[in-house]
Amino acid sequence: MTYQPPVKDHTFLLRDVLEIEKYANLPGFADASMDVVEQILAEAGKFTSEVLAPLNPVGDKEGCHWSPDHTVKTPKGFKEAYAKLVEGGWPALGSDPNYGGQGLPHVVNLAFSEMSSSANMAFSMYPGLTHGAYSAILNGGSDAQKSLYLPNLVSGNWGGTMNLTEPHCGTDLGLLRTKAVPQGDGSYKISGTKIWISGGEHDMVENIVHLVLARIEGAPEGVRGISLFIVPKFIPDADGKPGTRNSVFCDGLEEKMGIHGNATCVIRHEESVGWLVGEENRGLSLMFVMMNEARLGVGLQGVAQAEAAYQAAATFAKERLQGRSLTGPKNPDGPADPIIVHPDVRRMLLDSRCVIEGGRAFMFWTALQGDLSHAHPDEAIRQKAADYMALMTPVVKGFLTDKGLKACSDAVQVHGGSGFTEHFPVSQYMRDVRIALIYEGTNGVQALDLVGRKLAANGGRAVMTFFAEVDAFVATNGGDEQLKPFVEGLAGAKAKLQDGTFWLMQNGLSNPDNAGAASTDYMHLFGLTALSYMWAMMAKVALAKIAAGAADPFYETKLALGRYYLQRILPDAQSHLAKLTSGSELMMGLPAEAF
Amino acid sequence: MTYQPPVKDHTFLLRDVLEIEKYANLPGFADASMDVVEQILAEAGKFTSEVLAPLNPVGDKEGCHWSPDHTVKTPKGFKEAYAKLVEGGWPALGSDPNYGGQGLPHVVNLAFSEMSSSANMAFSMYPGLTHGAYSAILNGGSDAQKSLYLPNLVSGNWGGTMNLTEPHCGTDLGLLRTKAVPQGDGSYKISGTKIWISGGEHDMVENIVHLVLARIEGAPEGVRGISLFIVPKFIPDADGKPGTRNSVFCDGLEEKMGIHGNATCVIRHEESVGWLVGEENRGLSLMFVMMNEARLGVGLQGVAQAEAAYQAAATFAKERLQGRSLTGPKNPDGPADPIIVHPDVRRMLLDSRCVIEGGRAFMFWTALQGDLSHAHPDEAIRQKAADYMALMTPVVKGFLTDKGLKACSDAVQVHGGSGFTEHFPVSQYMRDVRIALIYEGTNGVQALDLVGRKLAANGGRAVMTFFAEVDAFVATNGGDEQLKPFVEGLAGAKAKLQDGTFWLMQNGLSNPDNAGAASTDYMHLFGLTALSYMWAMMAKVALAKIAAGAADPFYETKLALGRYYLQRILPDAQSHLAKLTSGSELMMGLPAEAF
Repeated sequence: MTYQPPVKDHTFLLRDVLEIEKYANLPGFADASMDVVEQILAEAGKFTSEVLAPLNPVGDKEGCHWSPDHTVKTPKGFKEAYAKLVEGGWPALGSDPNYGGQGLPHVVNLAFSEMSSSANMAFSMYPGLTHGAYSAILNGGSDAQKSLYLPNLVSGNWGGTMNLTEPHCGTDLGLLRTKAVPQGDGSYKISGTKIWISGGEHDMVENIVHLVLARIEGAPEGVRGISLFIVPKFIPDADGKPGTRNSVFCDGLEEKMGIHGNATCVIRHEESVGWLVGEENRGLSLMFVMMNEARLGVGLQGVAQAEAAYQAAATFAKERLQGRSLTGPKNPDGPADPIIVHPDVRRMLLDSRCVIEGGRAFMFWTALQGDLSHAHPDEAIRQKAADYMALMTPVVKGFLTDKGLKACSDAVQVHGGSGFTEHFPVSQYMRDVRIALIYEGTNGVQALDLVGRKLAANGGRAVMTFFAEVDAFVATNGGDEQLKPFVEGLAGAKAKLQDGTFWLMQNGLSNPDNAGAASTDYMHLFGLTALSYMWAMMAKVALAKIAAGAADPFYETKLALGRYYLQRILPDAQSHLAKLTSGSELMMGLPAEAF
Repeated sequence: MTYQPPVKDHTFLLRDVLEIEKYANLPGFADASMDVVEQILAEAGKFTSEVLAPLNPVGDKEGCHWSPDHTVKTPKGFKEAYAKLVEGGWPALGSDPNYGGQGLPHVVNLAFSEMSSSANMAFSMYPGLTHGAYSAILNGGSDAQKSLYLPNLVSGNWGGTMNLTEPHCGTDLGLLRTKAVPQGDGSYKISGTKIWISGGEHDMVENIVHLVLARIEGAPEGVRGISLFIVPKFIPDADGKPGTRNSVFCDGLEEKMGIHGNATCVIRHEESVGWLVGEENRGLSLMFVMMNEARLGVGLQGVAQAEAAYQAAATFAKERLQGRSLTGPKNPDGPADPIIVHPDVRRMLLDSRCVIEGGRAFMFWTALQGDLSHAHPDEAIRQKAADYMALMTPVVKGFLTDKGLKACSDAVQVHGGSGFTEHFPVSQYMRDVRIALIYEGTNGVQALDLVGRKLAANGGRAVMTFFAEVDAFVATNGGDEQLKPFVEGLAGAKAKLQDGTFWLMQNGLSNPDNAGAASTDYMHLFGLTALSYMWAMMAKVALAKIAAGAADPFYETKLALGRYYLQRILPDAQSHLAKLTSGSELMMGLPAEAF
């Protein structure tokens, strides 16, 4: 069975849980009536499952081909699929109408992004990075840069990349050495080597727009001396068409555990010509605009790979005949029962499913905050939404990719020996998703961003607002007998998160190592609490639908999954709280040489 | 840095914790004085780190080569390394002196096995499977079979395999179809296809002895009609030398996520000539002798890969300069601090280290039970040891491989983007170790074996004996102020395990699905309790050494790791207990089509 896009769950979230039609008076949302959205989802499902999904194993097995002439050939079929992507207008879905975009809310675009990523993660990274470059120029570029570059990035005719990492600096961009020398004509000459550049060179687009971090000659050391440049592979000519070949070269590809279909390039700038984006020495903050968006996209990859892997595992479990149910044959006429009769197989599937559906809701909810933070007329709501967006981004990225890897590994496990072979798709899902825990800031960096910056920002305003919102939900819904277990579960999780937060306030400020030592467990405790909230909201909708006579088993299943979440996933909250409050003393007491 | 064999930790366990010299009056142990053992460990360390470890990435990148003439070529260097293995007498270390073995206790051999597996898991599987074949023949073969096959298997001149799985049957061997037709001369003709046969064909040995499960014509269906056969690749001639080529052929190799250096073969028996081992239709119980030993070996792979991955990650963390400590620069003259200054990096390293050292102790302790169960003169001790061996085997296999994968994944994470590339060793460790959760019975099968068979055997005698042993340790050592946290941690873990055990007794018998639903969490709770016991024992020794004036920081580090285990790993026990006592209702309530 090939990938089945979860259109029904997307519709449930957008229509019933987030009720996006409530926002019809906001820019973008007016064009996103549920009629339109459902049509888009159906088309997106068709495109991703029929065009992208069949190429996923091809990309994995074949990989990309680098030639000494610095060209890179993508796997068979990628180029044609990319042409269809552009033709279908998919890259433009959520982009600014001023530059050819369709201007739909990000939360709607997210559904397409999830499907693309499930169908073919390596492929979906090409337009994903292009969108990142688009965002950076949209936010920081001059009007001339916007009109020169954005239409081609929005359409997907040109690709985009982020040139950050250098061999000696990844997380610590303050160390970067790539230099930029002003030429007096507004342009700069850029020299240096960048590594791990996704989509840094390939054959699917007519031009590639590199967004490059470099240090202008004489700029201060460290992060305050970094500027952002546009370095196009072909310098646009007077008509805005690809002109002179710039001296930016792909010197090779990385061999990687996964995402073989994506070209991970070493990029050499040999006095390449670049143009400054925004102000001198302010490149990092612009890059972080791009990065924050990218982080949500990486969290999405965690859910997307988990979904694809879950589907493969559930299908396998219903088809593979092996052994008998512990309570007597369930397929007495067959040689054995399908392995889905086994509780432990269901445990793995349901663990994954609860995290996928809860995580999907969390992603969508967070993306909606992003939309509201830009588009809502009420400043208080904009601020609250921006607070949430900032607070939740590291949780979406770190928590959902950690859980995504677990789900992909469990899907391998459900397959038994077959899962370890490359004849079944699950090995690839597990290998592909592994990078999501690392890039755009490792999950440890996410956790530190959460405890070190996001919590403390504005005197803890964001997290306090979240606690108040949860409290209000609990107060409003606590009297509903059927919803009670969900409300109680949520209240319990929130109480633990609050304990953890207070512990951090008391112990993290006096000794930052305590914050660092607590960070990953705190991030997980936060994720578990956020998912408790999502499950409570989803359960409330499902109960209302059932009360209103809905006969679709979708709603009963949703409730069962929510209950399973409370019983089988949420107990980890206690354990994370115990660990995070144990402090850093033992961890930091050992001398480095003891490791 | 290449792999550093943990000779010091092995010595600590054998000499100080398990005190193997106490058993000098037992067969085998007399030759295992600590002087001798330390010499063996030093030599083993040299051989594995200098000969096997350098070939590990070679095997991964090159893989094995199959030819249409049914031959398989191992990766460059493997053949020469194998010749050195045989020349060094390593395969004979723990084997029966009657057949050329050195007869050392299994617990000593285990140290060599761990080092081999850390250095090169794919390579170490060839002698590992040979040892399995040796065990099956030793336990079930006739005297003639023993003298014909065992000396060559013990020396390693011949290889051995286990031919169990068929395309339609893995876990459920009752479905197997390979048939055996008696020829009237004591031999059988075997026909059928076996898959996933590790080391099923290769170029390092002069003969390969397949141990094959097949159904004799007319035998009952299901597991009661399965017999075990010896099918040599070359039928030994009158002198016991490889003679006529048997009609057993390798039809291809699997493409796998990892262990590329091991030939995972499709093996076709085309009326191959075989000889029955033991009685007709009793093949499965003989295979289980082999399998139980193999399961301990797989648990060992979890620890071994985790150790190798940990070493790579710790080295990287001490060398990689990136960012600054949260509490101010620790390497002020350098461009940045080594990432080991970060608490979250230490968290990953210490999580792994606690499981590695605690898991190693647990493996060694279990292996010693195996030795005592055979060799001890006191029947009560033999029985107790055999009980423990049976009870702990699934825990060693399932718990330690789950934790091993986590440790390897964390080692990738410590490396950041480098970890995802194939230029660093950690991707391979993670891909290689993944199979350990699957083969020789998936970890779900281990968990079910634990709750469904091992717990209940002899009225729960084994687990009750374990509880009593822990209680006695707690009673004896509870008064020691310094040991108190360890004793209390152990007592708390044991109380939870006891609660879980009683819950299973009350709920698992009336509804076996409750046992199935609880099984994996119960297995983990058991593993955490066992490691608490190991850490308490190790802490006791370390405290005594320090009290006696030992200045080696090894002992202080051991204590710190033990305390870290209590604070940062053991809290999961509570969460496993909560999950396992939640029952199977939700899990089993969903219809299969809801998945």
